[in-house]
Amino acid sequence: MQLKNNLSTRTGWEIIENSFSEEQLVTTGSNFMIGNGYMGYRGSFEEWEADQYVACIVTDTWDQAEGSRWSELCNVPNGLYTRLFVNGEQLSAFSGQTDNYHRALDMKYGLNQRKLTWKSDRGDSIELESEKFASLANHHLLVLQYRFKGKQDGTYTIETGIDGRVWSINGEHFRSFETRNTNDLLVMDLQTSELQSQVVVTEGISIHGAPPANIEIIEEDRCILRRLTFELEKNQEVVLEKSVSITHDNELDDPGRTGHKEVLEGLKLGYEALRKAHKEKWERFWDISDIIVQGNTEAQVIARFNVYQAFIATPTHENLPVGARGLSCQVYQGAAFWDQETFNLPMFVYTHPEIARRLVTYRHDTLDGARRKAKRLGYYGAFYAWTSGKTGDELFPDYFFTDVLTGRPIRNHFNCWQIHISPDVVYGIWLYFEATQDWDFIKDHGAEVIFEVAQFLVSRVHFKKDKNRYEFIRLLGPDEYHENVDNNAYTNYLSKFSLEKAVWVYGQLKLNDPEILAALMETTGISPQTIEEWTEIAQLLYLPKPDPQTHIIEQFDGYFELEDVSPEEVRQRLIDPEEYWGWPNGVAVPTQVLKQADVVQLLALTDHFPQEVLKANYEYYEPRTEHGSSLSPSVHALVASKTNHKEEAYRYFMEASTIDLYNASKKVVSGGSFLGGIHTAAAGGVWRILVEGFGGFQLTKNGAKFEPALPDTWDGLSFHLMVRDCRIEINISKSEISVVSHQDNEKGIEIELNKEISILDPGDSFVSGV
Amino acid sequence: MQLKNNLSTRTGWEIIENSFSEEQLVTTGSNFMIGNGYMGYRGSFEEWEADQYVACIVTDTWDQAEGSRWSELCNVPNGLYTRLFVNGEQLSAFSGQTDNYHRALDMKYGLNQRKLTWKSDRGDSIELESEKFASLANHHLLVLQYRFKGKQDGTYTIETGIDGRVWSINGEHFRSFETRNTNDLLVMDLQTSELQSQVVVTEGISIHGAPPANIEIIEEDRCILRRLTFELEKNQEVVLEKSVSITHDNELDDPGRTGHKEVLEGLKLGYEALRKAHKEKWERFWDISDIIVQGNTEAQVIARFNVYQAFIATPTHENLPVGARGLSCQVYQGAAFWDQETFNLPMFVYTHPEIARRLVTYRHDTLDGARRKAKRLGYYGAFYAWTSGKTGDELFPDYFFTDVLTGRPIRNHFNCWQIHISPDVVYGIWLYFEATQDWDFIKDHGAEVIFEVAQFLVSRVHFKKDKNRYEFIRLLGPDEYHENVDNNAYTNYLSKFSLEKAVWVYGQLKLNDPEILAALMETTGISPQTIEEWTEIAQLLYLPKPDPQTHIIEQFDGYFELEDVSPEEVRQRLIDPEEYWGWPNGVAVPTQVLKQADVVQLLALTDHFPQEVLKANYEYYEPRTEHGSSLSPSVHALVASKTNHKEEAYRYFMEASTIDLYNASKKVVSGGSFLGGIHTAAAGGVWRILVEGFGGFQLTKNGAKFEPALPDTWDGLSFHLMVRDCRIEINISKSEISVVSHQDNEKGIEIELNKEISILDPGDSFVSGV
Repeated sequence: MQLKNNLSTRTGWEIIENSFSEEQLVTTGSNFMIGNGYMGYRGSFEEWEADQYVACIVTDTWDQAEGSRWSELCNVPNGLYTRLFVNGEQLSAFSGQTDNYHRALDMKYGLNQRKLTWKSDRGDSIELESEKFASLANHHLLVLQYRFKGKQDGTYTIETGIDGRVWSINGEHFRSFETRNTNDLLVMDLQTSELQSQVVVTEGISIHGAPPANIEIIEEDRCILRRLTFELEKNQEVVLEKSVSITHDNELDDPGRTGHKEVLEGLKLGYEALRKAHKEKWERFWDISDIIVQGNTEAQVIARFNVYQAFIATPTHENLPVGARGLSCQVYQGAAFWDQETFNLPMFVYTHPEIARRLVTYRHDTLDGARRKAKRLGYYGAFYAWTSGKTGDELFPDYFFTDVLTGRPIRNHFNCWQIHISPDVVYGIWLYFEATQDWDFIKDHGAEVIFEVAQFLVSRVHFKKDKNRYEFIRLLGPDEYHENVDNNAYTNYLSKFSLEKAVWVYGQLKLNDPEILAALMETTGISPQTIEEWTEIAQLLYLPKPDPQTHIIEQFDGYFELEDVSPEEVRQRLIDPEEYWGWPNGVAVPTQVLKQADVVQLLALTDHFPQEVLKANYEYYEPRTEHGSSLSPSVHALVASKTNHKEEAYRYFMEASTIDLYNASKKVVSGGSFLGGIHTAAAGGVWRILVEGFGGFQLTKNGAKFEPALPDTWDGLSFHLMVRDCRIEINISKSEISVVSHQDNEKGIEIELNKEISILDPGDSFVSGV
Repeated sequence: MQLKNNLSTRTGWEIIENSFSEEQLVTTGSNFMIGNGYMGYRGSFEEWEADQYVACIVTDTWDQAEGSRWSELCNVPNGLYTRLFVNGEQLSAFSGQTDNYHRALDMKYGLNQRKLTWKSDRGDSIELESEKFASLANHHLLVLQYRFKGKQDGTYTIETGIDGRVWSINGEHFRSFETRNTNDLLVMDLQTSELQSQVVVTEGISIHGAPPANIEIIEEDRCILRRLTFELEKNQEVVLEKSVSITHDNELDDPGRTGHKEVLEGLKLGYEALRKAHKEKWERFWDISDIIVQGNTEAQVIARFNVYQAFIATPTHENLPVGARGLSCQVYQGAAFWDQETFNLPMFVYTHPEIARRLVTYRHDTLDGARRKAKRLGYYGAFYAWTSGKTGDELFPDYFFTDVLTGRPIRNHFNCWQIHISPDVVYGIWLYFEATQDWDFIKDHGAEVIFEVAQFLVSRVHFKKDKNRYEFIRLLGPDEYHENVDNNAYTNYLSKFSLEKAVWVYGQLKLNDPEILAALMETTGISPQTIEEWTEIAQLLYLPKPDPQTHIIEQFDGYFELEDVSPEEVRQRLIDPEEYWGWPNGVAVPTQVLKQADVVQLLALTDHFPQEVLKANYEYYEPRTEHGSSLSPSVHALVASKTNHKEEAYRYFMEASTIDLYNASKKVVSGGSFLGGIHTAAAGGVWRILVEGFGGFQLTKNGAKFEPALPDTWDGLSFHLMVRDCRIEINISKSEISVVSHQDNEKGIEIELNKEISILDPGDSFVSGV
């Protein structure tokens, strides 16, 4: 079926572009991307170069270019680089004539495919078919199959190898480019500018169909290529297969040797075998992660696109952060924000808890960075980085936006006032723990984080003796248009949550693991008196409560006194459309207009509030929200769905889920020029809408309950979840919902449907009307 | 002798302009102004109108024009308006030819004088002499003597009466202008726009020399005038004398009748008698207030100019505020800022304690306004208005400056974060009390203010349990370039001071005036437990202490981490020269560059710090201060003088004392167009430099001590002080200092010179080498 934005799908498993659109080159590059959580490779054409934004972003390669204020992931040389000449004329999307164009992203198997017929200006024709993937079986490996046949006899030349003319948004990341040709493998050995990490791109090829008449090595500016010349007859096919390994010494002791070995192995196995191993991994992923939408193919393909993107953005081979744009580009530094816990984690917690464990363990691995940040700012405990890379040190610069009206840098306080990041980390840990009951994780990693966050909160909170309450002063909540506020509801509630968990964990450890507790008390410097402090702060922390009449929670002290005006009216006040709306003097600052869900976000994270509170707050804040962040629509969809705003829920679902697919995102933000990329948190948020919103899933004390709210245009919704080590399958139709406990489960699970509770043994199912 | 800025002086008592400078019309209007604390009348020419910025600003006439965000004092119709025609041609500074021009301000007697010969374009000549004053004997009265003779026979016409074509910087303040001609008196009866106050200008004249040939009344647009036609011979003199009374119903029940009566009386007494009564009052003022500088006439006239301006700016007939620009213009709304206590009060405390008592009582009169402000902002107790008029309600608008680069209003936080205003009020009260020992004042007025300020501080302070200390968060100190700071040294020290005084006053009342205390506890709602709170906060309030090595006090938390750069370099970063340097994104914000003395200001107010602390801080902060406020130089002069930086002290003295006289002030500030006026706080500050700096005066437990630092170019310095009801005379020469106790004193006073203490009985003197 035809989708929007020049796309279509056949089975709901692929997105297809049937005509090439040059203007959308930036967007399609990320929409058609392949990846495996180690690297993200843009879905661009093999002959493309930096000008067409070819990029391969590799995690754990953070580096700060000279003169830049940004540390970011490296865009590594393109080992799949392949240009094709037909009787001397180069195949190109920008010259000659392209027919039968077909580009597809096969999401079922993580394949990027291209097919076309191309006619040169001179009239020579060629048929081309290529397929590539970033192997899920070996995360270092990029694999390409590139086949062509001419429609006339002639000389065909392939130049293929490694293109090191990489581009970066913030300066040059490689101080040296060493090229080698070792036993038929081409190698580019690089050293990063700042940290002198070694990055190695190793490439090997095999040729099938027809042998080249001539092979020579050419080295151009930052390129090492083979020139393969073929004298071919009409319709004689040549198949080029490439294996490229990308390795670096942040992961491996000898990235050169590993790369060499892996490429040789890849070549030995051959394309089909590599592809098979890769496909099996994808099958295993989708087996539990697929979400089936019945009766709406567009929604189906959108659902899968978001799950696909959320997955390939997430490192699974080591404990590393999920970047805010995943590995789709360098924007947001390949670093974790609060998005990781609040948007990306839930999908993994409930489908791949082993990946979720990596993500929460990453926060433990970076505890020292958070400690350093706290100390630098005059606090103690763990103040997590707003922008967190390898070490957890703060990557967010003091000056982020530029005032487009004056050209002056703006001192944004994301890195120092947005303290909710620390409770958010605890929220993530708790989400993981509640779903998995993985006490070992808490014991070995989580407790230390939770204690240190509690300590940070102790050092950050103020006590108002005259009101006998604790307050958090000078905050920036999720709504980033209002900096410097007090008692932000989101922050205060999450902080109380964190402190309560700290007290509880302390109690559990004391009971069950006293030696571990003793060691932790030593490490963190806490004492029994500390626990009393946590308890007191949790008890006396001021929480802006729902108003008894209106049920509305005030976003922060004094919010209701701000000018009450619509986002549209505020937009009219812009002098320049690219102005930042927030700090210090943006148009939204004196108004109630929000950048993104704040109280609504809080409601989306907790189950504490009754329906009337959800509803009142959703209805109050929704019309005041500008959705200046891509995080906002998915949370609105979720809460709209929970509060029976079905149409709005669906509208926000579509907004959240198609921001990238339908090319609807902001491209440039206040003074910085951003190259699209994938909004990874929105992708993660879409999973939450589908499962928690439309599917109505909620974790319960001993299992799960479901209160589905199926969109009207859908016939059904099916998905799987992992809850407390039990796999369950959920099928929702217009009339009923069924939950099946997987036969391989090792224990029973308690399921609540329509206020009825049933304990499902392995293989059992539970059906209820909706 | 010749002074700068086209001025000269003869005796050191007057400032003289010998050639008219049109470009300086704005400045000379305020420099030559007359006034009496009830009204300020610009030193303009009798025939001038709104275009020449004629103005008569009257205290206690606050009114907010429709559509304006400012409440300001009214500029009332000009009852001295007089235009003169010689054979049909109008005398004007802008046409014909002026010779023998002489304009003078006689500061000894508060007289504005003009003398000139004028030749019309046709060649007719006239000699003119005028003198006017704002009576010190009857504060409603403006009196003019206007005499002329022609050098040729001819027809001479005077049009004199009331010119109601007033200008205002923020809109029309009068909703009605009623004119009357009652028994030869002209009356303009006005009603203000907002509060419907009645303001009445009543005018009467008498003619001497030659009688008019014809008199008619003419009413033009907002003018009521008499046209007096004279047929005169050559050299025949006409003398016009005018008495004008300006009254309003905020002071009087029947301002019309009082005005009528006073003008009739004035006319009956005649100019000479009115002048005599006025002069006697001025003599009485100078008898104690004069400061004699020997050996430097420029310094002499400057000293008197500042004392003169500080005096005529200050209401003495009622308890009313000293406006930041006195009554010289409408700028700063005729309202009191912290300047009143920290810059203007000291001179009165030590020379005219009865006037000082009015000023501090004014703060008690406006306590309810301060209570309302505290309550509105979520506090309790008394949060004094940053800009305080009649009622003490906050007159300062939320948006003050405009960003000149974007045209956007700036949310300045002078009115909500500059909390030091409340402790400043206590500082003023304490200054008065320490100098006078006027316990009755404390009992009847001061205690309530001090208690309510303490209560405000309780409601504003935060406790950091982890540090076991109280902190003030989100402040704006005197250095207004750094908003939103924590633990501003100035604010914290003054707050501690206030709390300690509250505790002490409570103790004294308990001991000596228990019934008064009981009543006060009832009114203010305090209890013995409250006093414990005050005590605890005073004890545990965090004070940024002088660094043990460098002796430097950090201006606020994190100040030392700001970019350390010179004001000059910061100036280079301006895009527009009129940009505001401070909040939200001005050039000084990320730097250590200060708008005005802050820590230095603190040092200027207290005697607690040892010399090395004064010196180290002066030397650290002085090069980082931009002096963007006219308050800054005088404080620098004072502390420079105390720390033996003699040259700098003198340079800052000259800056502070001549900002108006030498026309050195900023005329326009960020987006608002300000018409000069007199920098009243600078004038008050000059007194402090002279007496406390160069004279080295310091109050002691039982009297006074002096550690003079006579400027090198001076031969001597003499002044009088009132200390603890004793009048003393101080004479400082290059070699010695003498202090004489006035023979009329009723008791002895303890004087310390050169670490020697002597108790001076009435008539005694004490001489010491310096």
